[in-house]
Amino acid sequence: MAQDDNTDVVIVGAGPAALFAVFQLGLYDLRCQLVDSLGSAGGQCAVLYPDKPIYDAPGFPEIDGIELTERLLKQASPFAPVFRYREVVTDFQQTPDARFVTRTDKGAGIRSSIVVLAGGLGPFVPPVGSVSAAEASLEQGLAGQWPLKRSGGAIAVDPERFETSTPGIFAIGDACHYPGKLRLILSGFHEAALMTQAARRICFAGGKTALQYTTSSSRLKDRLGRPADQA
Amino acid sequence: MAQDDNTDVVIVGAGPAALFAVFQLGLYDLRCQLVDSLGSAGGQCAVLYPDKPIYDAPGFPEIDGIELTERLLKQASPFAPVFRYREVVTDFQQTPDARFVTRTDKGAGIRSSIVVLAGGLGPFVPPVGSVSAAEASLEQGLAGQWPLKRSGGAIAVDPERFETSTPGIFAIGDACHYPGKLRLILSGFHEAALMTQAARRICFAGGKTALQYTTSSSRLKDRLGRPADQA
Repeated sequence: MAQDDNTDVVIVGAGPAALFAVFQLGLYDLRCQLVDSLGSAGGQCAVLYPDKPIYDAPGFPEIDGIELTERLLKQASPFAPVFRYREVVTDFQQTPDARFVTRTDKGAGIRSSIVVLAGGLGPFVPPVGSVSAAEASLEQGLAGQWPLKRSGGAIAVDPERFETSTPGIFAIGDACHYPGKLRLILSGFHEAALMTQAARRICFAGGKTALQYTTSSSRLKDRLGRPADQA
Repeated sequence: MAQDDNTDVVIVGAGPAALFAVFQLGLYDLRCQLVDSLGSAGGQCAVLYPDKPIYDAPGFPEIDGIELTERLLKQASPFAPVFRYREVVTDFQQTPDARFVTRTDKGAGIRSSIVVLAGGLGPFVPPVGSVSAAEASLEQGLAGQWPLKRSGGAIAVDPERFETSTPGIFAIGDACHYPGKLRLILSGFHEAALMTQAARRICFAGGKTALQYTTSSSRLKDRLGRPADQA
């Protein structure tokens, strides 16, 4: 068997919330591998309404799923995420050093400190609503081994950290539920940002914990490959 | 004295969260008037970094405050918000029918069912961080009459409804605080969306409560002035 891969974060799914999570985690120097059963990025957004206009993405009076996906891919690209398309999670294990091993149907084993469940549509999407397919895929991935607490037909998280009932496993986007949850793309972005703050505190325990801003932090700009002062 | 104006929602502030709130509330047929002490929309975003690149607005690998503001204004434009620039809130009153009257330094009185505190920078912004100016402006507006519960240097809200300790008064964006709060523009968008769901339940008590999607709802598309089926 091939040797296991190593990364900081395994993300199950490659939809909008997952792609923005790559960007947010990258700002804090956390590298990601994304596992998605589909053949490309975008999740529901690209599968259910590739060229159907979306009117409620903030700052876009009108955009379609394809363009939004392309823009999120470009935004995440400085952090060189590894995409594992047409690959399905078959198993998670926790190692004695409190890391995870995610196994897939392609025989991969990926070691990480954090696992983020971010949708994960199956290859066959029902015509009306994708929730059940997403759920089914997650269930399949989790294989009943992780008794994650559920609510509202999804995985229960706290809206401060977006962590599931198993420490180190997070859920964002349509995979998660909390009081007031809306299945909107814009909420997935917020969830990705708050999850990132909790995840980096796990990965860099004892390190600096101040939030940084891309408009002002030279460290973040450096990671983005942007000039330190462009005003 | 001039007769009071009537609207559904008074928003204090005209920054990114406020502008996206106009869009979200408009989707549910709620009309807004925005009061801002500045001479134009955009809040901190336009005042503190008008042409400084922002890298963490979801879907925008790079954008400046001016362009983001223009895009949010365009997105909100189908709902024809009323902007009251260079105007400062001097007083709130609650009427016997559980509506609010917001009074300004220009002698305006605006009756509404909902008040949303969404920042509200004063006209003089300190060079480093605008939090204190925003807070001062809010304090000035609130005039100590509304003992809104505070936390984290801002107004405490619950992260399900983004309502303050006074029913019918909400806070979003940098004006609000809750566990895990990040002062990011993208969180302001999420807060605006969840606030809208709570606000419309107050305004249309007993009405339909299902969330609708701009990609599929012909009612929302109609309100946006968009064709019903454009796929």
